[in-house]
Amino acid sequence: MSWIDDPAFSADAPFGPQTLPYGVIPDGIAVRVGDHALPLRPLADSFGPRLAELVSATSLDPLLAAGSAAWSELRARLVELVTAVSAPRGAALTGIDGTVLPFTVADYVDFYSSLHHAENVGRIFRPDGDPILPNWRHIPIGYHGRAGTVVVSGTPVVRPHGQRRTPDGPVFGPSGRLDIEAEVGFVCGGPVRGRLSTSDAVDHVFGVALVNDWSARDVQAWEYQPLGPFLGKSFATSIAGWITPLEAFSGARVTPTHGDVLPYLAEERPWGLDIRIEVEWNGVVVSRPPFREMFFSFAQQLAHLSANGATVRPGDLIASGTVSGPERDERGSFLELSWNGQEPVAEVGRTFLEDGDTVRLTATAPGVDGSVVGLAEVVGTVVAADER
Amino acid sequence: MSWIDDPAFSADAPFGPQTLPYGVIPDGIAVRVGDHALPLRPLADSFGPRLAELVSATSLDPLLAAGSAAWSELRARLVELVTAVSAPRGAALTGIDGTVLPFTVADYVDFYSSLHHAENVGRIFRPDGDPILPNWRHIPIGYHGRAGTVVVSGTPVVRPHGQRRTPDGPVFGPSGRLDIEAEVGFVCGGPVRGRLSTSDAVDHVFGVALVNDWSARDVQAWEYQPLGPFLGKSFATSIAGWITPLEAFSGARVTPTHGDVLPYLAEERPWGLDIRIEVEWNGVVVSRPPFREMFFSFAQQLAHLSANGATVRPGDLIASGTVSGPERDERGSFLELSWNGQEPVAEVGRTFLEDGDTVRLTATAPGVDGSVVGLAEVVGTVVAADER
Repeated sequence: MSWIDDPAFSADAPFGPQTLPYGVIPDGIAVRVGDHALPLRPLADSFGPRLAELVSATSLDPLLAAGSAAWSELRARLVELVTAVSAPRGAALTGIDGTVLPFTVADYVDFYSSLHHAENVGRIFRPDGDPILPNWRHIPIGYHGRAGTVVVSGTPVVRPHGQRRTPDGPVFGPSGRLDIEAEVGFVCGGPVRGRLSTSDAVDHVFGVALVNDWSARDVQAWEYQPLGPFLGKSFATSIAGWITPLEAFSGARVTPTHGDVLPYLAEERPWGLDIRIEVEWNGVVVSRPPFREMFFSFAQQLAHLSANGATVRPGDLIASGTVSGPERDERGSFLELSWNGQEPVAEVGRTFLEDGDTVRLTATAPGVDGSVVGLAEVVGTVVAADER
Repeated sequence: MSWIDDPAFSADAPFGPQTLPYGVIPDGIAVRVGDHALPLRPLADSFGPRLAELVSATSLDPLLAAGSAAWSELRARLVELVTAVSAPRGAALTGIDGTVLPFTVADYVDFYSSLHHAENVGRIFRPDGDPILPNWRHIPIGYHGRAGTVVVSGTPVVRPHGQRRTPDGPVFGPSGRLDIEAEVGFVCGGPVRGRLSTSDAVDHVFGVALVNDWSARDVQAWEYQPLGPFLGKSFATSIAGWITPLEAFSGARVTPTHGDVLPYLAEERPWGLDIRIEVEWNGVVVSRPPFREMFFSFAQQLAHLSANGATVRPGDLIASGTVSGPERDERGSFLELSWNGQEPVAEVGRTFLEDGDTVRLTATAPGVDGSVVGLAEVVGTVVAADER
């Protein structure tokens, strides 16, 4: 019996002692226990001087930089504290609301590693060709996004203006095809290094968080040739306020679906993850994207992005790309669910997002010994475009 | 007669009192005067308390955040100090070497705003179609690059590994087509804001610096569909160690070459700039790209990138895209100079970069009253690929 009196803090609930995600609330760094937050600064004396400094910071930045040995040590100590019979001195539970962006986003890279998503997009936009481009099965295709517009869950999403094509030429105005992309994000840390192997990569991932890569499809369609997506994506990318440590996913590992890869992308111990996402649109579940279906793992993505010597820094955020499964109700974007706006999504009678719509992503993964590991929600509500 | 006894500190030399670029050397923030650096921390008392704090920092970050009023005030005070007859108390000149990256790069955006460059690339890669894509004249096309691999002038550039296509399928190894892109970079500052007009944009640009966007063409060619350049660019982007304030360019303004644009891209007072770049390859000038030929200005680029509400932060770096003029000897990349490797560049007998090659970019612009304004060199030497 733990001192934490919260029925949601149990092994068969997403935020039991097997999960322990980190976030930053007005009280500083906290760990989530069930439906409560446990601020860590008041407990700093329990951790020894080095960890005490890390948990007393105002963001996760110093903890990210500290590296994987510190992450393991802190987590082990936290498991002891939250499963103890009596409350440690100074412990006081508080609410889980009011999270802020918990770390400084260094570089944000968005991949495109779901074969089903890439096939759907290819079929929609190139109906006469092979939906999968020749490079796709060889390279974890990705691009850099805008780090400065990564926002925490709950931040309203203002409908962006942008250029879009019309039969009379391009016009500028509010996007008419605002969409989501349900993704899994990996938050990097440890010493700054280039050229990570797939095995090294694991020591440079602090934790995992759901990401919604909001997308203005009309803006994106007109702008993306030849240098890729830009303003169609850069207005907002939402990330959950709680980051679940990578260590929590040891019971969720699966083999990614890729076939032969070049040696620098081979994994000795595969790092696919059986994360099961739910996409709620105005409170209705419209899709259940299965992350286990991803073609490349985050370890392969990190090995690829650093293969040219590019350094990986604490705070780098790697998003998986839209997660879509083979079935219709497993698609991770409304572009796919509505087949480019041709078939309204029946449950909500919508094709793309309307002002006032709310999208909420949640996820769980199998833990060890039958437990369940949670990924905190990432939620956002669409606000009408600015007058101008 | 100024107290600064350096013949290079004159109105008809690039780094006279009309220029005064900022850099960071081991002694802290400095201003360049001719072939010397003047460290500012020992002079802090000359500036008043607010500016004193800004010039005593270890990087330009606080100065960038302070905004355009502070930039003007500091520059005016510096002009007085460096043109005075007697040296201010504490002033001591030092060398201009040993610059470090002078600011923390927030987001790095690379544009593609030279029509001549885009035409050349289009002719090389799509010989049968219109070299200019339908969106190009309407949108300042651009993409996000990797902020974490922006390096200061003088940093060696290790030849990157990457995937490239062969008739027998993709292989992984050192790039065989390492190239440069001669660009002009704009360093942003001021309060964090979204939706800048072209007029607002000017108040958010602290200064101007040459950029070399090193490019692995074989890697880029295989990876870039459909999300744009990634590892072909992300291994290194070099920026000059000295940032010339935007205010120094008041005598260099010209009208960019674009025709009709949508209203959000219109400029009341055009911000094209008559910057004349020289590209030296192993000490031989191989090209003189004219920045005045650019199709869109930095003000239009900033108005575009923030048109969707994306915030602009201090430390954002906006690069112009490769600067190429209409003439053969005005091309800003070796891809163009060698026409995709088919015609060696006569002056050096090379198509792409070989190990040990050095590339140096320099530039000047007309100042007021017949003076000349300098942009400091950005130089890099290619080092052999890592063994692996």
